[in-house]
Amino acid sequence: MTYSVLKYENSRLEVLDQTRLPGEAVTVELSDLPSVEEAIRSLQVRGAPLIGLTAGYGVCVALRGAGSASEARSRGPEVLERLSKTRPTAVNLFWALERMEGRLKDLPEAGWFEALEAEARAIHEEIKIQDSAMAGHGTSLLAPGARAITHCNTGPLATGVLGTALGVLIAGHRLHGGMHVFVDETRPRWQGAHLTTWELANHQVPHTLICDNSAAALMRTEGVDSVWVGADRIAANGDTANKIGTYSLAVNARHHGVPFYVVAPSSTVDLNLPDGAGIPIEQRDPAEVTAPGGRPIAAKNTPAWNPAFDVTPAELVTAIVTEHGVHKGPTYDLAKALGR
Amino acid sequence: MTYSVLKYENSRLEVLDQTRLPGEAVTVELSDLPSVEEAIRSLQVRGAPLIGLTAGYGVCVALRGAGSASEARSRGPEVLERLSKTRPTAVNLFWALERMEGRLKDLPEAGWFEALEAEARAIHEEIKIQDSAMAGHGTSLLAPGARAITHCNTGPLATGVLGTALGVLIAGHRLHGGMHVFVDETRPRWQGAHLTTWELANHQVPHTLICDNSAAALMRTEGVDSVWVGADRIAANGDTANKIGTYSLAVNARHHGVPFYVVAPSSTVDLNLPDGAGIPIEQRDPAEVTAPGGRPIAAKNTPAWNPAFDVTPAELVTAIVTEHGVHKGPTYDLAKALGR
Repeated sequence: MTYSVLKYENSRLEVLDQTRLPGEAVTVELSDLPSVEEAIRSLQVRGAPLIGLTAGYGVCVALRGAGSASEARSRGPEVLERLSKTRPTAVNLFWALERMEGRLKDLPEAGWFEALEAEARAIHEEIKIQDSAMAGHGTSLLAPGARAITHCNTGPLATGVLGTALGVLIAGHRLHGGMHVFVDETRPRWQGAHLTTWELANHQVPHTLICDNSAAALMRTEGVDSVWVGADRIAANGDTANKIGTYSLAVNARHHGVPFYVVAPSSTVDLNLPDGAGIPIEQRDPAEVTAPGGRPIAAKNTPAWNPAFDVTPAELVTAIVTEHGVHKGPTYDLAKALGR
Repeated sequence: MTYSVLKYENSRLEVLDQTRLPGEAVTVELSDLPSVEEAIRSLQVRGAPLIGLTAGYGVCVALRGAGSASEARSRGPEVLERLSKTRPTAVNLFWALERMEGRLKDLPEAGWFEALEAEARAIHEEIKIQDSAMAGHGTSLLAPGARAITHCNTGPLATGVLGTALGVLIAGHRLHGGMHVFVDETRPRWQGAHLTTWELANHQVPHTLICDNSAAALMRTEGVDSVWVGADRIAANGDTANKIGTYSLAVNARHHGVPFYVVAPSSTVDLNLPDGAGIPIEQRDPAEVTAPGGRPIAAKNTPAWNPAFDVTPAELVTAIVTEHGVHKGPTYDLAKALGR
């Protein structure tokens, strides 16, 4: 890997400013609570696992000036509260903050800061192990020389380590060679164009950018072996919420007999949801559609429909890959599969 | 109609400069052959029928300074040759130029310029009648209050008169009321965003812009009654080449049981092609994908795949609407249907 997405050393937290990609790879230090909040809020760091990771270390940064364990404990709740408000729909953010909260509650007097850091490092380690396991399981589904389509960004920039779906493709190229990755631009925010092309170039994986609307034609005329996407939330039956455009890709994959794989850590699975109908879909600012990058493309006052996610029903998902293995469809009982 | 796409009066040709839409509606005079060539080449006028129409009147503009029928005849071939090179893949351009060529060949000495103008006006009249007939046939397929998706631009801006697919939707709203049109932005060149939203606003048809990748989610969650597209070329068996993204929309329509209609004049049908396999697909500049509107969105030197069109197989087309009527699928014998 030729770039560092997040680094925590000598109690200093540095992240790659993803808002400046692909133009410039600039590392910024997050030196206090406001800068951590701002980094998450302004999307300098994004991707659910990376947000959780940043928040974990962010708690350390915010409390490192405390004079004692009791001061850290008393200031802790406000820090957690403020961080929890930075991205209200990011499941991994809450997961990371809950772990830091647990640690804060029984913080030892001696070595309290090292104990806090150890918790953040444990979160980091867990993501590392998850990413590696997903890459291992996922690459078993990839033939040498595979031609794959991916959507949005699910690489190191999304988890801070190897990534989910894109992690599988990067690992597959290392293992088998000969991969070619077709990257959906991923309107409206262009994460595929901005981030995934940049990551694949850095990892020297051959790739081609396509408009989202071209994936079907690509499958029909150019040959595609598989489609790989991440997930924002997965219901117990395998219905998968992911970046808008994922569902269209799944329908097209099915029509062309192309396997469609979802790669996500098991923390993404929400067993409280029996199916995808219960997944709330955030509607985002219509200006993302009508004025990409701030430049208007439509007639004045044109209304736009801009859901952040769509839900792909489980029957269109060939397999879900978690750190626990490859769970094959077309039906899923994820409570059972994950032993919960 | 609150705007004029093309006007020919007192031997003067004026067109709406479509490159400045939706920001400004500016009319420009095409006063000589170079300005006509440039207008077509630079996409100030676009849409196959409108290009043909502009070329027809363009021949008049180019030759109006000729002193006699014989001078017009001798200058004619160069004019036709130059205009034919402005958009080498536009079928209607050649159709219009052939008609003007036929007229030039037996140009009368007396009233030669009026005869030339009459031929251009006849082309215009023919497009008018075709557009009206398609609107008539097409609206028979639209229920009051229909919710339709359309792709690219197929309105008055594309034919100079009422349009093809969008003409049906505009007419449907006038006839039945209550229409809602969802407009695909149509990457990479954004004709849906730039032109179709502007036309629907001017015709006071309620509409919403969507990213191309959202059409499937819209069909699944919001309810869509039909999909309407134009065509660049249709093979004898009904296979339809149209703007990239059309095929994805057709696959998604089929998956959701939504009727998928193609609207195009019969001149679009190429009976020399038994099926869509023979339709050449122009590859356009990758920069349209990697740098929309001239602004880079991907990592430096990212390769892109940018076909201008895709081919939708006939079995996904519910009906083809021409000026001759509604031709229903799932199989088509267009030679027979069009009586050729």
